Amino acid sequence: MSTKKRPFRTLSSRVVWSCPWYQVRQDEILTPDGKPGVYNVIEKTDAVWIVPITPQRQIAMIYQFRYTVDEWGWEIPAGSLKPGQTAAEAARDELLEEVGGVAEQLDYIGRFFLANGICNEVGHIFLATGVQLGPTHHEAAEVMSVHLKPISEALEMARAGQISDGPSALALLLCADRLSTM
Amino acid sequence: MSTKKRPFRTLSSRVVWSCPWYQVRQDEILTPDGKPGVYNVIEKTDAVWIVPITPQRQIAMIYQFRYTVDEWGWEIPAGSLKPGQTAAEAARDELLEEVGGVAEQLDYIGRFFLANGICNEVGHIFLATGVQLGPTHHEAAEVMSVHLKPISEALEMARAGQISDGPSALALLLCADRLSTM
Repeated sequence: MSTKKRPFRTLSSRVVWSCPWYQVRQDEILTPDGKPGVYNVIEKTDAVWIVPITPQRQIAMIYQFRYTVDEWGWEIPAGSLKPGQTAAEAARDELLEEVGGVAEQLDYIGRFFLANGICNEVGHIFLATGVQLGPTHHEAAEVMSVHLKPISEALEMARAGQISDGPSALALLLCADRLSTM
Repeated sequence: MSTKKRPFRTLSSRVVWSCPWYQVRQDEILTPDGKPGVYNVIEKTDAVWIVPITPQRQIAMIYQFRYTVDEWGWEIPAGSLKPGQTAAEAARDELLEEVGGVAEQLDYIGRFFLANGICNEVGHIFLATGVQLGPTHHEAAEVMSVHLKPISEALEMARAGQISDGPSALALLLCADRLSTM
């Protein structure tokens, strides 16, 4: 099987619903066996997740209420790219907005798809080190508080399944090897 | 801050777009500071991700094309709950459909939100052991092949960011401690 081959044919494509944060594109397709079908793709801007480490080797975490799931939970700073922003610019922006953080160094860890069965959103993971914390700049729909956790405690929370935001848990676990040598 | 408090008020709620796989609910809300706003919630059925281990200590992985992101990538068996199914029933079902697997034992590892900024989807992670493989039952929109990987190689792929499906990578990393003692 070649990694180059695109097994579906797209016959038509139109936006069937949209809001300021994402839109639904509906494609008429032919499946690999030539049968007609419909595929709806939620189109959303890329987003970033940042693991912020202070000089005291603590992780700046967020305890946040999420309206979609009607739950409070632990997360790390995150947010969508604003128009014209690179992922790294968005990472510095969200770090400042959500935990008032300014990083000495920002390392790109990797990218992942959030929900590739229905949505094209790409998440970019950054490790921010030497993070100095200051005042936050939360938006009205963001209900959160900032908490400093020792690196080992944050990793243990991720490993124990106590971080319900999947991308935050993934970001912490993908940084685990680097964090353990800090 | 109490974990019990729900900081938003919902004034009205209606479905503004739907398809067979999910729908968009639009709520008129009051933000915590009492200002009116709109929150769109993509409502989707829970889904399962299964880490399938054979008696030969291999992981049954899937190399799959995802139409939403126009890419091939490595994943583990996964799928949405069908009507009336529990998460465990869906896990056994998807294991059989996608890799032809029957598990001796199925352990619940935990739950996570895929994209809690826009969607209410919950992912449930299972570790399936003693998995015997047989013929698969793929759907027309599923373009995939099954590959057996040694546990250490699959974990290394996840740690190196080579598994672009976020939930699959998270599931593997959350099972890492258990897998390393197998």
